[in-house]
Amino acid sequence: MTRTRSSSEIRDASRREIVRALVVQGTATRTELAHTTGLSAATVSNLVAELREAGFIADAGTDSAGTGRPTTVLRIDGEGGSFLGIDLAETYVRAVVFDAAVTEIGAANVEIDEEWVSVDSVADALLRAVDLALERGGRAPSDILGVGLGLPGLLSTDRAGTVATPGWAAHVGRLEDRVRPRLPGPLVTANPLQAVGHSEIWFGAARGRSSAVVVNLGTGVGAGIIVEGRVLRGATHTAGEWGHTVLELDGRACRCGRRGCVEAYVGVPGIRHTLSEVDPDHALLQLHQREFIEGLRDAVGDPPVAETLARTARYLGIALSDIVAVLNPEVMTLTGWTAWALGDALLPAARIALAERAPELTAARLDLGVSPVQVNSVATGMAVLAFENHLDSSALARRARSRPGPRVDPPGPSPTPSSAPQPVAG
Amino acid sequence: MTRTRSSSEIRDASRREIVRALVVQGTATRTELAHTTGLSAATVSNLVAELREAGFIADAGTDSAGTGRPTTVLRIDGEGGSFLGIDLAETYVRAVVFDAAVTEIGAANVEIDEEWVSVDSVADALLRAVDLALERGGRAPSDILGVGLGLPGLLSTDRAGTVATPGWAAHVGRLEDRVRPRLPGPLVTANPLQAVGHSEIWFGAARGRSSAVVVNLGTGVGAGIIVEGRVLRGATHTAGEWGHTVLELDGRACRCGRRGCVEAYVGVPGIRHTLSEVDPDHALLQLHQREFIEGLRDAVGDPPVAETLARTARYLGIALSDIVAVLNPEVMTLTGWTAWALGDALLPAARIALAERAPELTAARLDLGVSPVQVNSVATGMAVLAFENHLDSSALARRARSRPGPRVDPPGPSPTPSSAPQPVAG
Repeated sequence: MTRTRSSSEIRDASRREIVRALVVQGTATRTELAHTTGLSAATVSNLVAELREAGFIADAGTDSAGTGRPTTVLRIDGEGGSFLGIDLAETYVRAVVFDAAVTEIGAANVEIDEEWVSVDSVADALLRAVDLALERGGRAPSDILGVGLGLPGLLSTDRAGTVATPGWAAHVGRLEDRVRPRLPGPLVTANPLQAVGHSEIWFGAARGRSSAVVVNLGTGVGAGIIVEGRVLRGATHTAGEWGHTVLELDGRACRCGRRGCVEAYVGVPGIRHTLSEVDPDHALLQLHQREFIEGLRDAVGDPPVAETLARTARYLGIALSDIVAVLNPEVMTLTGWTAWALGDALLPAARIALAERAPELTAARLDLGVSPVQVNSVATGMAVLAFENHLDSSALARRARSRPGPRVDPPGPSPTPSSAPQPVAG
Repeated sequence: MTRTRSSSEIRDASRREIVRALVVQGTATRTELAHTTGLSAATVSNLVAELREAGFIADAGTDSAGTGRPTTVLRIDGEGGSFLGIDLAETYVRAVVFDAAVTEIGAANVEIDEEWVSVDSVADALLRAVDLALERGGRAPSDILGVGLGLPGLLSTDRAGTVATPGWAAHVGRLEDRVRPRLPGPLVTANPLQAVGHSEIWFGAARGRSSAVVVNLGTGVGAGIIVEGRVLRGATHTAGEWGHTVLELDGRACRCGRRGCVEAYVGVPGIRHTLSEVDPDHALLQLHQREFIEGLRDAVGDPPVAETLARTARYLGIALSDIVAVLNPEVMTLTGWTAWALGDALLPAARIALAERAPELTAARLDLGVSPVQVNSVATGMAVLAFENHLDSSALARRARSRPGPRVDPPGPSPTPSSAPQPVAG
């Protein structure tokens, strides 16, 4: 029997809804918050009181527009605390410090040598990025209430494995162990697909939608799946590996070692493969990764490029139709640098291929476009996930007890956040 | 912002959990119910009192095994009311009457001429099956508290369309309108994939699992998707159309009009296609549908049949791996008559193909097998869906008011059940 949510889980979810509504709307009265979240006025009042006590909500004046007496307008108190979002990618690590209003206050990138073999060197790069971001944001480690780390590839409760980056396979768990004690707050991890799902729920196309799919297009491709307003993680925390579903039985070799994967057609190496089929000697084939994609964007009038984009759009539309057929989402949004650079060029033909391919009605009301969140989507998603975990009852109670004195750092052992694959040691 | 569930929705969900636990376990004390459902003792007591008042729960003696005073053992009162589950398929309609313990008490099949063109003739067949089932179960129309109708093909809020059976496209909505006023209780509809999902949650492989996928293998194929213990319906009520995802780009023609669909390889016509590739003159190609599948089952030692099953198992394993990659479910269960007849023959090789094809770790803990629910899975699923709708606060309150006098039939206008695509008129 599936366990029904306990009252404390419901309260945690409601608290998150209130914070999210205030962050996104900027300011709101209690009545407006009740309207937006669907919570009762009493529940809103209780939770707002609790969040004011914890330092996350402050007054922003009064609203005397109505006929009754003036009501208090609320806002998030950005000074209530800071959160770190870290985007660990194959070629770089980016750390971003956000205040409690989820406003970026400091960020730093550190490149990672693609040929690296040492966990230590990646750990060092990550911690250097964190230190730089804190310095640029003017925050001390003790200001950080939580850290969210987006890790490439597949994560599991066994902390092993990745498809997209085979070299990392044995290292993800060791990397986590290495950095955890040196990070300035409790750590929560997720894969980048799940991270962008969280970004989209807070700030993007999934806002206010029950079901949404965020499709990431880059070197690797994958999907963040949102069902009933929550990011789907899956039984072994690997949901969303759409990039390695089959587009063509026994088709092109994929870098995962299998054949015919979606990624081998719409990932960057796949698009290069298509251009090489169209024109094996094309000059753009000298370029790699982002430069290659930007080269395509700047040459859409070139016939081989146009043909490559037409084929890619068809592959993309068909591959997207598989998600639509199975999940029938309200909205689907493309993110990642291929989507940002080539979305306009690909979407018209992709929409046609999707509509032709998707079973009747499954795409009838589908809203498909490029994500409005085009900067720091992984780091933002991980920071808001860390924020959500911090807002859970136990963490908040600990915090309330420790105020107004200085926060002890590192904090005592934390309970496992429900969405983290690993126990979080303080 | 996604609306948080209201307290009455939470109460409805909790009430369903208690009924489901008692139906499945047979008998239980309040303490055992609290343990099984994760609800507080106080909530269990309140809801049990309400359900006793409504006539669904009765005492089944006392348990004096513990050290304290004896506690009351509870059971579902089967006489609390009856529900009708209807499985409207392409070639038959089956109506089954269940008591409140979800025990079958009467059933009837009426065949449908595959060449029919008239909505009236299907409506007549459906209503004849209902009358026969009521008669065999010894129930009057006024005993029926709810009717669940599983409709083939795609349903939408526009009530149009089907992929699997193009001839029905324009008729599903008209059929519903035709039968609704002549059915003995409030009507709830779903497609068969969603119906088997409900069966599996109550009685099958999805019991106690958070995520599960029920894969139906017959003439058409598709998936019932269960996320967080609930059947996913999708934005236009068409989630689960896995049969029309791509297995082979520009591959075999599918009866939906597209190419390369999963159904064109693992649906019954697809399996016939494969046998015809292996041995175009094979005697089994004279048979159709169930007879063809049973013929394969009885000839597994025949080399062309063995080769056909080996290819089919590979197609199936690869196609299932796509669901696993995207959803990463805890459990996947095969249902439908192809699964029941050929499951043992297909599963070993399908498991190997799935494990080879699924991204690392996504299938690491997957539990894959043939469903234990092999009889009336659609009718059972629709009956429990009707039961769940009846258990919602508003319906239950209406019922409590009308007891102990005879139930008025037809009932007054009902609110729209959250899971039904259409307003339900009494």
